[in-house]
Amino acid sequence: MSQPTRNRGRNRAGPRPSARVTNYGQLRNPFPSMDVFSADRIEAMHEAALDILERLGMRVLLPEAQAIFAAGGAIVKDEMVRIGRDMVAAAVASAPTRIEGRAGVAHRDIVLELGSLVFQPGAGAPHATDEIRGRRPGCARDFKELIQLTHHFDVFQMLPPLVEPQDVATNIRHYFTLEAQLTHSDKFPFIFSRGTPQVMDSFEMLRDFRGLTDEAFSDQPRCYTIINTNSPRTLDIPMAQGLIDFARAGQISIVTPFTLMGAMAPITVAGAITLSHAEALAAITLTQLTKPGAPVCYGTFTSNVDMKSGAPAFGTPSHFQASLAAGQLARFLGLPWRSAAGSAANLNDVQAANENQFGLWGCLMAGATIVIHSAGWLEGGLSVSYEKLITDAEVLNMVAELCAGAEANDAEIGLDAIAETAPSGHFFATAQTMARFQTEFYEPIIHDYANFGTWTERGAKDASNRARDVWQGILADPKGPKVDPDRLDALQADIARRTQRGGALPES
Amino acid sequence: MSQPTRNRGRNRAGPRPSARVTNYGQLRNPFPSMDVFSADRIEAMHEAALDILERLGMRVLLPEAQAIFAAGGAIVKDEMVRIGRDMVAAAVASAPTRIEGRAGVAHRDIVLELGSLVFQPGAGAPHATDEIRGRRPGCARDFKELIQLTHHFDVFQMLPPLVEPQDVATNIRHYFTLEAQLTHSDKFPFIFSRGTPQVMDSFEMLRDFRGLTDEAFSDQPRCYTIINTNSPRTLDIPMAQGLIDFARAGQISIVTPFTLMGAMAPITVAGAITLSHAEALAAITLTQLTKPGAPVCYGTFTSNVDMKSGAPAFGTPSHFQASLAAGQLARFLGLPWRSAAGSAANLNDVQAANENQFGLWGCLMAGATIVIHSAGWLEGGLSVSYEKLITDAEVLNMVAELCAGAEANDAEIGLDAIAETAPSGHFFATAQTMARFQTEFYEPIIHDYANFGTWTERGAKDASNRARDVWQGILADPKGPKVDPDRLDALQADIARRTQRGGALPES
Repeated sequence: MSQPTRNRGRNRAGPRPSARVTNYGQLRNPFPSMDVFSADRIEAMHEAALDILERLGMRVLLPEAQAIFAAGGAIVKDEMVRIGRDMVAAAVASAPTRIEGRAGVAHRDIVLELGSLVFQPGAGAPHATDEIRGRRPGCARDFKELIQLTHHFDVFQMLPPLVEPQDVATNIRHYFTLEAQLTHSDKFPFIFSRGTPQVMDSFEMLRDFRGLTDEAFSDQPRCYTIINTNSPRTLDIPMAQGLIDFARAGQISIVTPFTLMGAMAPITVAGAITLSHAEALAAITLTQLTKPGAPVCYGTFTSNVDMKSGAPAFGTPSHFQASLAAGQLARFLGLPWRSAAGSAANLNDVQAANENQFGLWGCLMAGATIVIHSAGWLEGGLSVSYEKLITDAEVLNMVAELCAGAEANDAEIGLDAIAETAPSGHFFATAQTMARFQTEFYEPIIHDYANFGTWTERGAKDASNRARDVWQGILADPKGPKVDPDRLDALQADIARRTQRGGALPES
Repeated sequence: MSQPTRNRGRNRAGPRPSARVTNYGQLRNPFPSMDVFSADRIEAMHEAALDILERLGMRVLLPEAQAIFAAGGAIVKDEMVRIGRDMVAAAVASAPTRIEGRAGVAHRDIVLELGSLVFQPGAGAPHATDEIRGRRPGCARDFKELIQLTHHFDVFQMLPPLVEPQDVATNIRHYFTLEAQLTHSDKFPFIFSRGTPQVMDSFEMLRDFRGLTDEAFSDQPRCYTIINTNSPRTLDIPMAQGLIDFARAGQISIVTPFTLMGAMAPITVAGAITLSHAEALAAITLTQLTKPGAPVCYGTFTSNVDMKSGAPAFGTPSHFQASLAAGQLARFLGLPWRSAAGSAANLNDVQAANENQFGLWGCLMAGATIVIHSAGWLEGGLSVSYEKLITDAEVLNMVAELCAGAEANDAEIGLDAIAETAPSGHFFATAQTMARFQTEFYEPIIHDYANFGTWTERGAKDASNRARDVWQGILADPKGPKVDPDRLDALQADIARRTQRGGALPES
């Protein structure tokens, strides 16, 4: 742990003596949505997706899912499921346009609908990296710390699995990841869809920790999962199980075909998004056939590959346009939906910042309900950076400030202040300034406004260095949620019992 | 000069063997404009600005400008000029809504109107900085090199004075800065408003270099200047002279009150922009009283100070909102206008990238015609960074790609490619991919998609390091414009004559 510095004192992320009241949670998107394609071409893409499902079909590996599709009217042959447009239309009609998720405390509840705006940091990285300990395979300590950091910033309203805790055995990893989320945060938790046994374990543990009956648990969403199709046109066993299990239990599936243009999808934005749309509609249809009205989010994560190397790229113009196209399709359906930012950079540098923010604006102007990978994600998701989590949170906080808007009443226009200030004078001492100077402006986490001389005297730390100080400060004194000791004891005893019985291996 | 590396070869900024045709010049803004205030509050701000001009007035230090205002109906007393709303209305009505500027060659011509989008790198820094030579007072070599770098990137459509060449005597500095622009670029040049003698020198030199008569020179704009009011409510001598001189000669004034909220302007976005609006209207009025129809751009550069230290901050939520408000007022007037990005960071780090891009999106969503300081600007304008010029140009190129839009015709949707690819297969070899892989995606300048291992092997260079390689490559082999040797000889002889006569000192 580095020594405190003057700068750190100013920037430390613990409670600050600020007079400013902010609301960085439960945001509404204030940005005008942008179209990349005309309405008739969006309709053509939707029709093409329906054609794909009806004529080519999806390969669905789980027999139970095949049976559900067949019972709903699909034509199933040799794992290929051909889904009629009427089935899709019925599913889109029954999928909820508004989902209210209950977190550990009421002020952490989330609303998912077109117009709401929810951020998550990066999810699913095999590696963690920071300036102190370097790049390493993700471990339990990293998972816990990254949950603590996610909990710290109000602008993150959902918990993702930031990193894969590779030092925890796979048969009991789901116990660890859920326990870490429930004990270090009261935000809306994530459950992996790695097969029915793990999902059922997790539902039961969450139900009990929240003190709910089965009915109350199913009554309103308490957790979510991410469903990735295996593009093109394959739905594998654990993903299909997840869609079914979450739908039955009234919990949220966020459907995300991950379609890299030129690799597992057509090379064009329109083609890749059409394929993604088809796959998302198939998954949504499965949830609604399982339980009409089950909470499900439309989603996309489409970017391009570098055609010279085949490497994925993020925060590119094509990524931005893909988000816009997906947003148009989501509005066409009327469903809440997720998009994603992200970066291909290998460290928290200018490329990482620029790609992430570029992709973020694509999501914002696409009207995404949930923006995943909006902080911390490096190497196209192969690592999550502690410092980048902080520097990206700064950008998200600034976006949240824009969500709050500004006033232009007579008090703000302030003709009195202008009249009382002589030409070439200054406004530092006007009544208007004095009344507002402690609360008017955004207070940054790590952005530093010191001049070059002062900044040099203070050690010439770059933004990443300062972010390192911030995360260290947060983790040295984490402000976790209040946890009922009895519930915690019961959870841990439950995990011990389940562990003794051998846990549950992931399905594949 | 560092040695070429493998990475540099790939990234070098000279002509690349690319099959891709791009148009990063003469852009139209594709982004939906965003309002921060309601239409009635924008009207209230406009009315308040008219009140300020009519009731409080502007302090105008130049007697000639006072006389022009008085002749136009203003009430002038003790340097204070009170301007009636009817005068302002007439000026707004006569100011052109579209300005066509002629550069050195036709394909560099610019159009300034609502809807067009023109980028400039950072302007006016006293210091230059780069990774090779460090931070130093700006000098002639820096000025020239930064013009060469600006010329290199199509996305910069106007030349600003990036850095102050402090090693050139002030009586002949305007010769140097104009000569450097004309010989190292054929883009639209800038002339400082540092008093009538220098401006007249510059007009004559530019007129002769372009081979024009006085009439042809005045007939269409060939250059521009930036007019900063001394906020609050002061118009100093050289700035007033500039407005008059440029209007008379039919050249472009870009009017920019620089109003930092809480310092030289009210602490609120609405107040600061109302003051800025009043000052801009006063300056526009002076140009139109001088010559109705004279080309003039509305403008603003409004951000906040850090109220703890008084230091200016850029790329903040308040800066973003100020751009939006100014955009609403510009649309209210119907005039082309400038806004600005920028950063307060002390080096080209994540803060610098994030602030600059955040401010940029504010300008884009505000519908700014010209975005100044969109690349290279550090320390709130106290230095310009060679590396940041490159890394920001990457972001601007990506924005330019978005300006080009995307297609969603049947060829792009590509049902054939989807049908020919088996479930879980890949699209690398489809006919659609093969036909497009060399041209479909943006080709980055310095963004690197190599994986961690390859990137490490190549030297683990961050984005700034790679940007350093790029600018070195450009300056080692600059692709300047074709310059007529006779015109160049004549220009240099002219400068020698003017220098021998003593040049012209700036006015103050």
